[in-house]
Amino acid sequence: MIVHDGRSSLAVGVDVGGTKILAGLISEAGEVLRRMELPTRAGEADPCARIVEAIESLGAEGALPPVRGIGVGTAGQVEWRSGSIRHSSALLPGYTGTPLRQLLEDRFGLPALVDNDVNALAVAELRLGAGRGCRDFICVALGTGVGGAVVSGGRLMRGAWGGAGELGHLSVDRHGPRCICGSRGCLELYASGTGIAAGLKRRLEAAGLPADGADARAAVSGWLAGDDVHAASAVEDALDALGAAAASLAHALNPQRILIGGGVADAGEPFFAALQARFREHAMPSLAAGVELLPAVRGRDSGLIGAALQLWEDGAIGVGSREFS
Amino acid sequence: MIVHDGRSSLAVGVDVGGTKILAGLISEAGEVLRRMELPTRAGEADPCARIVEAIESLGAEGALPPVRGIGVGTAGQVEWRSGSIRHSSALLPGYTGTPLRQLLEDRFGLPALVDNDVNALAVAELRLGAGRGCRDFICVALGTGVGGAVVSGGRLMRGAWGGAGELGHLSVDRHGPRCICGSRGCLELYASGTGIAAGLKRRLEAAGLPADGADARAAVSGWLAGDDVHAASAVEDALDALGAAAASLAHALNPQRILIGGGVADAGEPFFAALQARFREHAMPSLAAGVELLPAVRGRDSGLIGAALQLWEDGAIGVGSREFS
Repeated sequence: MIVHDGRSSLAVGVDVGGTKILAGLISEAGEVLRRMELPTRAGEADPCARIVEAIESLGAEGALPPVRGIGVGTAGQVEWRSGSIRHSSALLPGYTGTPLRQLLEDRFGLPALVDNDVNALAVAELRLGAGRGCRDFICVALGTGVGGAVVSGGRLMRGAWGGAGELGHLSVDRHGPRCICGSRGCLELYASGTGIAAGLKRRLEAAGLPADGADARAAVSGWLAGDDVHAASAVEDALDALGAAAASLAHALNPQRILIGGGVADAGEPFFAALQARFREHAMPSLAAGVELLPAVRGRDSGLIGAALQLWEDGAIGVGSREFS
Repeated sequence: MIVHDGRSSLAVGVDVGGTKILAGLISEAGEVLRRMELPTRAGEADPCARIVEAIESLGAEGALPPVRGIGVGTAGQVEWRSGSIRHSSALLPGYTGTPLRQLLEDRFGLPALVDNDVNALAVAELRLGAGRGCRDFICVALGTGVGGAVVSGGRLMRGAWGGAGELGHLSVDRHGPRCICGSRGCLELYASGTGIAAGLKRRLEAAGLPADGADARAAVSGWLAGDDVHAASAVEDALDALGAAAASLAHALNPQRILIGGGVADAGEPFFAALQARFREHAMPSLAAGVELLPAVRGRDSGLIGAALQLWEDGAIGVGSREFS
């Protein structure tokens, strides 16, 4: 049983990915007071049933104090106003079209907000992380794919229905290979973990070398070690694509900061130094001046925290069809 | 003599381009009540002196009624809060660094706002044109170069200092030719009037044909007529670049509409039909669905009108260091 209190300084935060679902009790200050984790079992289990299970499991350790509501950050494209899943890739089969917000409100009888997972991450960065004190920044999350979020004037930019921020599908080469999205030469093809792994594999095979262990981690290690031309070439290509995309974003959106998160960015200082150089190569001096490329604050709980913090954002509750007191 | 009245429903609007400066007396409803035009004489005359002349010339036809202020839309990158020219290309030599807002306020003793010319155009579209009733749209202006503006949630998106909207410098081919901005393969290289003309010239020269009259107008006419393979190839390449950029913008910003203005878009229906097809080729179905590609409302006075209308936008006056009653 979860009890609603519109003045509570606690909320339930949920982070839904293709591999696992995290749920936590989060304070208005962003502290994680209780935390549970379930495998998503994508393709086997109904994602909604698993989300409900994850939230219910939070109460297993003893009664939850009254909360302000439930905030969810999820993989997929979310219609912000209704909190429905507009589109989800094969990562979460059967998820497209789910009216997740409505389902959670009906199930738990308390206000819910559903947003894209990188938007949730961006809220955590804005309130507690590398976006603090900054009204205009961009998040690029380098994972299996590439996700993004845009903060403009201190607020998440949502666009017409909440789909803004699909930065992995900026085309950086309109003559490039076809992407799963339908376009060509998308950033994701080069700079995601999958893209870097494929780039390394291609290079090894072209050189007649075994390509079995060719994953993004191996590519980044080889690049860092400086003794592996194939790894170096794959990672340099990813950095160039990311630098070009970051420059295009600086031109279009005039951010103060560009925050890079995810596995690849964990390579740290050498990664950011190389990216900085590529960015300056591609960006206009007038719009590149002063732009900081920084790591997103790390931590597996960022999405969880940001999803919960959204419940305190101005006007965030009540944007949809139902108003809560 | 121009007299200030903070409740006036009239304003002076100014549109500053590399070739000419327009000034007009504009009503809150966007009517042009009086209008003057001066050649800019870029490189010979001081742009500011010419702007002042253009505004003063408005009074030449008889005393101006009291106005709310002066709104300027100008070529170049504008620091929105201070109304200074942060960067201007060789189109307006000596213009970079001009504190235009301050100069106009000091000279005329009334509130002034200075913004980028495509931002001004976007305000006219939002209030009176193809952006009416739409909270999230993008303007792409195809002229000698390519300019842009982003309207998000019914407001111009400005970014950190007002530089947002440099959409001509989205890189659509990171391996493409070097652009004057420093990047490679920018949209402007393919889809501006200059870019289309250069594309036609290259194709004619490669075929051993005379390339003297190769301008954008000739390319578009040849493409429309359907009997000129070189013109067709140059324009199709521009359309592909624009379609790829529009798709990237749809992915990043989730607009409802993408408005295209400027000389090339004057080719009308065949242009928009072909662009629509290219856009769908490059865009994700979930983010392309429902996006309308439309011509910006034509009219040489859009920039002028939008610059003046900015004076009535929420909070527009008083954003800078000086407050006006």
